[in-house]
Amino acid sequence: MLRGTSMNDVYAVILAGGSGTRFWPASRRAMPKQLLPLAPGSNAPLIGETVRRIAPLVPQDNVVIATGQSLIDGTRNALPELAPSAFLAEPAARNTAPCIGWAASVIHRRNPNAVVMVLPSDHHIADEPGFRAVLEAALESARRGTITTVGIEPTRPDTGYGYIELGESVGPNVRRGVRFVEKPDRARAEEYVQSGRFVWNSGMFFFRAADMLQAIREHLPALADGLDHIEAAAKKGADHEQEETLRLFPQLPSVSIDVGVMEKVKAFHVVPGSFGWSDLGSWETAWDLSDKDAAGNVANELGVVVDARNNLLMDLRHDGKKRVMAAVGVEDLCIIETDDALLVIPRSRCQDVRAVVEALKEKGHDHAL
Amino acid sequence: MLRGTSMNDVYAVILAGGSGTRFWPASRRAMPKQLLPLAPGSNAPLIGETVRRIAPLVPQDNVVIATGQSLIDGTRNALPELAPSAFLAEPAARNTAPCIGWAASVIHRRNPNAVVMVLPSDHHIADEPGFRAVLEAALESARRGTITTVGIEPTRPDTGYGYIELGESVGPNVRRGVRFVEKPDRARAEEYVQSGRFVWNSGMFFFRAADMLQAIREHLPALADGLDHIEAAAKKGADHEQEETLRLFPQLPSVSIDVGVMEKVKAFHVVPGSFGWSDLGSWETAWDLSDKDAAGNVANELGVVVDARNNLLMDLRHDGKKRVMAAVGVEDLCIIETDDALLVIPRSRCQDVRAVVEALKEKGHDHAL
Repeated sequence: MLRGTSMNDVYAVILAGGSGTRFWPASRRAMPKQLLPLAPGSNAPLIGETVRRIAPLVPQDNVVIATGQSLIDGTRNALPELAPSAFLAEPAARNTAPCIGWAASVIHRRNPNAVVMVLPSDHHIADEPGFRAVLEAALESARRGTITTVGIEPTRPDTGYGYIELGESVGPNVRRGVRFVEKPDRARAEEYVQSGRFVWNSGMFFFRAADMLQAIREHLPALADGLDHIEAAAKKGADHEQEETLRLFPQLPSVSIDVGVMEKVKAFHVVPGSFGWSDLGSWETAWDLSDKDAAGNVANELGVVVDARNNLLMDLRHDGKKRVMAAVGVEDLCIIETDDALLVIPRSRCQDVRAVVEALKEKGHDHAL
Repeated sequence: MLRGTSMNDVYAVILAGGSGTRFWPASRRAMPKQLLPLAPGSNAPLIGETVRRIAPLVPQDNVVIATGQSLIDGTRNALPELAPSAFLAEPAARNTAPCIGWAASVIHRRNPNAVVMVLPSDHHIADEPGFRAVLEAALESARRGTITTVGIEPTRPDTGYGYIELGESVGPNVRRGVRFVEKPDRARAEEYVQSGRFVWNSGMFFFRAADMLQAIREHLPALADGLDHIEAAAKKGADHEQEETLRLFPQLPSVSIDVGVMEKVKAFHVVPGSFGWSDLGSWETAWDLSDKDAAGNVANELGVVVDARNNLLMDLRHDGKKRVMAAVGVEDLCIIETDDALLVIPRSRCQDVRAVVEALKEKGHDHAL
């Protein structure tokens, strides 16, 4: 596996604090995207798929789930195989730098030699062996002392992602990282894709825990101070640690790891990869990734489509009753059922699901948020 | 009220044997259209609205509901105000002539002076006082000894209805009937409407019970024979009557009252009327008749429409739970929810609901039929 590093030193931090409305009515305040079974062909929640996927690389006891206080119960339920100690509940949402810094600090106390991979909890990966090969290359790069990220080889000039510019090669399939760039406009995105020197920012990071803590000390000293205080409290016992975490965490600087650390470090590496990655951004993506019938429809066995094309019929109800979903003479629609809501929206409008959530707020239907 | 006739002599026969698939998923084998609350602004089933509408004209004890054996329980549940004896359950479906003949015979035994109105159970009437005025004119015409029907003044060259040609005037708003014509083609329908001499066949009939029985004896002797046998058995007691009805009814000639009697009688009268009539032929009609918001959408308070126009959102579930129905960026759709099915179909395609029912049969989903 990893040359020179015991697999026991490999840790994973799964970022599972996200909330979001793009998968309403399935996604809710208490049921964010990562807890939903949105992966094509799977009944497991996305976070369960994420943990399963990396099992060959990381001992189960070394998996850490970073989530929010309000999501802790739902997240534990989604991952019954993990011990309670696997879950870090952030007392407040402070973006990714405090979250990753805290996790790195906790892991470093457990194992000073730890090599950590940080992964989003809610993405889809079609080519899992290819994905794991990329992770291994990134871990190996991190083990050698350089913070490393994975870059997705772009398949279109998407303006919804951040990009990373690649520099010279520093090893087999490892490039020096030149810079992070925020979501570009269309013209610039096209330029990036044509150049062949840019990849999408995957939100995956790889580092020795000690290296990340050192980088935070250099570039986010206020965060380093906070983590030091929590560490000092931890040495006095678990109660002290918890108390100090609750007190300090909400005061930590709210900044992303990209902006707070990655854009400032002297050097970082990028492992470019192409493994059927999708961030599952909307119902449109869910249709896109799913197996379809000859007319382009996605439906379960109780879905009935008559003279209808390219629709997504999704029944996410939980009461176990048989229900028919019938679509006649319609095209390019997403039709989504949950226990307490129905959504009908054109595939091309899926980004506008937010508007429904806003309308529900205005109407006072908080039960459906 | 009726000159020369006591209101106690007025009877109503409500035809409630219909089944049909045009309102799937709401309409089912055991829940045909007349049992559904499809009247705009009402939670009562259509048959309940029908009975309520004629209450000023007919004593409640004189209302007879003719329905099928398999629908008897559901029909009674829909009309709890009526006595059990009000319901005639046809042992077999033999079209309208045996049904109306049987009802006329039963009523004639109760009251030899009975004047009967026969009404469909599943229509909608917007102008109820106007409707009742037309019924009174038709009853008056019937009381004078001529079988009478009501004709709907056509508002468009509809090819889905039968037409009746009007002859000379024989009284205030009463015309001699010239002939019944089956559903015409488009050109002929346009001709009919332009002529001003044609009305739509409403399926409403008015007659003295004795006159209808006499007409059946002349034009459908086999039916008259059967009814005679049932009458003879009735004289021996209720058990005999029931036994003979069960035995004979399935053998009666299966023919409509239009073809078997009305097209053959020497004379019939027509009262033309215009009272906001609709036969509620499909979900499209339900949308058409309903109150709409400024964008043309029909929805309940848990309906959320965003940038959507001219849609019908209908929640016919019965479990009492609050559920949101959201439509974003769609136009001209009917979206219908029941406890065990969902239908999404363009308004213009509502006649194709049958295709869903066929598809369900093929797939073996009999529970949803």
